[in-house]
This record gives sequence, C-alpha cells and structure tokens, in this order.
Amino acid sequence: MKKFAVILSGSGVFDGSEIHEATLTMLAIMKNGATFEIFAPDVNQHHVINHLTGEEMKETRNVLVESARIARGQIRDLKTYNPADFDALILPGGFGAAKNLSDFAFKGADCKVNEDVEKAIGSTHAMGNPIGALCIAPVILAKVIHQSRITIGDDSSTVAAVEKLGAIHEKTTHGEVVYDAQHNLFTTPCYMLDANIVQIDEGANNVVKAMMEKM
Amino acid sequence: MKKFAVILSGSGVFDGSEIHEATLTMLAIMKNGATFEIFAPDVNQHHVINHLTGEEMKETRNVLVESARIARGQIRDLKTYNPADFDALILPGGFGAAKNLSDFAFKGADCKVNEDVEKAIGSTHAMGNPIGALCIAPVILAKVIHQSRITIGDDSSTVAAVEKLGAIHEKTTHGEVVYDAQHNLFTTPCYMLDANIVQIDEGANNVVKAMMEKM
Repeated sequence: MKKFAVILSGSGVFDGSEIHEATLTMLAIMKNGATFEIFAPDVNQHHVINHLTGEEMKETRNVLVESARIARGQIRDLKTYNPADFDALILPGGFGAAKNLSDFAFKGADCKVNEDVEKAIGSTHAMGNPIGALCIAPVILAKVIHQSRITIGDDSSTVAAVEKLGAIHEKTTHGEVVYDAQHNLFTTPCYMLDANIVQIDEGANNVVKAMMEKM
Repeated sequence: MKKFAVILSGSGVFDGSEIHEATLTMLAIMKNGATFEIFAPDVNQHHVINHLTGEEMKETRNVLVESARIARGQIRDLKTYNPADFDALILPGGFGAAKNLSDFAFKGADCKVNEDVEKAIGSTHAMGNPIGALCIAPVILAKVIHQSRITIGDDSSTVAAVEKLGAIHEKTTHGEVVYDAQHNLFTTPCYMLDANIVQIDEGANNVVKAMMEKM
C-alpha cells in the first residue's frame, strides 16, 4: 500500500491549514487506496487570527499542537520525517503555508521556508518521489525547488511573486492539476480560487489521483 | 434548493466539533444538491485540550470563534437561528457536543443542554422538519426530544445513559442511519465507532441523503 506524508501548518484557514483542504486530502488519499501519516513543524504560529472577526488575537499557539486537531492527535513532529518511509509528500493549503511553513505572506519572493519543511521537501525531491501541494502551498515548492512548474490558480500578484522566485506558472481553474514532469510535482488551486467545498473535494482528489498514477 | 442549518461546537474532536465530521457533513449537503448555513452558540468552551498530549491547557476559547475556523468565517450566533428559514437541522459530533452544547460528557443522563441549542432543536422539531445528528451528538436529541429513537453506535455505557434519558437506542455499525419516523430524526455513529475517514464520509453522506429523501 502506498503511503503519503501530509504536512499541516495549524488549524484554520487564516493562520493555519485550511481545514477543508486538509480533511479532503486525507479522504482522497484513503479513497485512492493509499494510507498516510501527518506531520507539522513544532514551532509557534506567526500569529492567531479570530476567524469570526478577522482580527489578530493576543495569544500564542503552536503549529504542531493546533495541527493535531485536524489529525485527531495522530501527528508527528516534522523533524522525525524520513522520506524513505513514504512514497509521496503532500501539503494542503491555508495561510499557514504562507505564514508558518514559510513567510511568503509577508515577504513574497523574498520569503524563507521553515528549515524542517525545506529539508522534508528537499530530501523527498532528491529521492525522486512525487510532491503535491494545494492552494497557496505551491509557493513553497517554487522557493525550494529551482525552476519548478506550478499553479496557484489565477491571482496576478501571487503569480508575479512566484515567477520572481524562478518558477513557471500555469493558470488553472477548479479541479485542474499542473504536473511538473521534470521535478515530479503536482499542484492544484483549491481555495486560491473562489471555490466551494465540492470543488475542493474534486481538486484534492484529482491531485492525489494524479500522484498515485505516477508512483 | 433545500437549506440545512449546521450547528458546530468548537473545532477539534476532544473539546469541540470533530473536524472530519463537520467538514464531511458540509460536503455531503452540497453533494446532495442542498446548501447550508453554519451556527454555533456564543459561549466559552468547557475547557481547551491539547490535541497532541490530551492534556488540558490553561486557556479560554469561545465556541463560536473556534467554530469559525471550520466555517472559514461564514458562521452566525445560534441565537439568530430561525427554523422557518431552513428545511433541516444537523449536528456533527465531537466531544464539543457533550462538553459545550451539553454537559453529557460529565453528567450523563443528568445532563443539561445549552439553551440556544435546546431552543433550536425544539423549534425545528415543532415545525416537523428533519433533524440529523452524528457520533455523540444524538445524546442531545435524546435529552431534548422525549422518547426519541437514536443511535450512538455500540458503546454500552453511553447506550445505558441514553436509555436512562428515555430514548430507544438502536445498535449500528459504520455508515448505518437510524430513522425515528415519529420525530423525524436521523442519526449515525461515525467516530463513536473505531472508524476511518472514508467511513465518516459514508456516514455523513448517508444521513444527509436520508434526510433529503424525507423533505
């Protein structure tokens, strides 16, 4: 049975993993006949956003601890990730990918990537295994893997930043998957578009299915 | 188009809504051709659980604010719920149903139900509209609606408490739905059983489909 590693970035679209994308990625992996383990870096979130008002809260929350909510406690520190134990790596989206796994939300093309995330992507890529990313998470691939071909949907300022990172961007709509054959990368826009939850289910399923076909 | 009201109880299985059940209920509603609005009571959580360690954290979180993470900010105070605006009401599970929407987790058959939740269920029931509940949430129906017929799976101590509340319990396995024709209630066990995410998807879809067929 093929096994995916899933990297989360918190729990909630505005400061962590987008919950629907994370849940539907896990569902898609099992529906396509594979299994998964979940990881997150053991670092504090950049900040905590009140998802009702959109305002910042005077709180500190930990990415690994909050990601455990989506994982029902079944989660490991990303430092313990060994690519040799897995057949694929996948990153759901949400602002957490651009605020906690990297600082793309604040620095754009000048962003840095969390060292555990960079190592996980780099080591998986070095083995030639497929890597998937949804929504805004493909910007991390654009930063870590030189001249990758990805999609983040059709947002022009994000596309400009991604191209400044040296990536080739393909414009996509709901459920479409961009395959980078040279680097074995799979990306889909999900909530980077004005999408509904059925379209997220379709995008997550399409990206996982495309990855399974190349394993 | 038929419209569901969804009541959440926080965000995370151990102190709020079970995230997979909530997400997959929303997906099931849209997949079955209906739409939804999300509600939660504006009250503090009973407590906050670190989902990595299982230990209580010295924090205070609000049920409406945390539920907004699952709802991507599109959520309303349950006080504003008017059953006349909806065709059905549904409650996903998670300990939040037994800790925040009621105190069943601590009091069992002696539990009380949050007044906004009780009013929402009572007024929907009085109109004769269908009410669905997943996982542990059916215990709230057992408390509010006299002599209801429900399932919480097969956990013997929970079954005993539910029967003490005057409900008729039917033992079920993955994906099965118990229909109470007298009260128009639909319940399914989900994570009250040792289930995986594909089985949760099946349970959520089956309960929503059964409700749609009776509208």
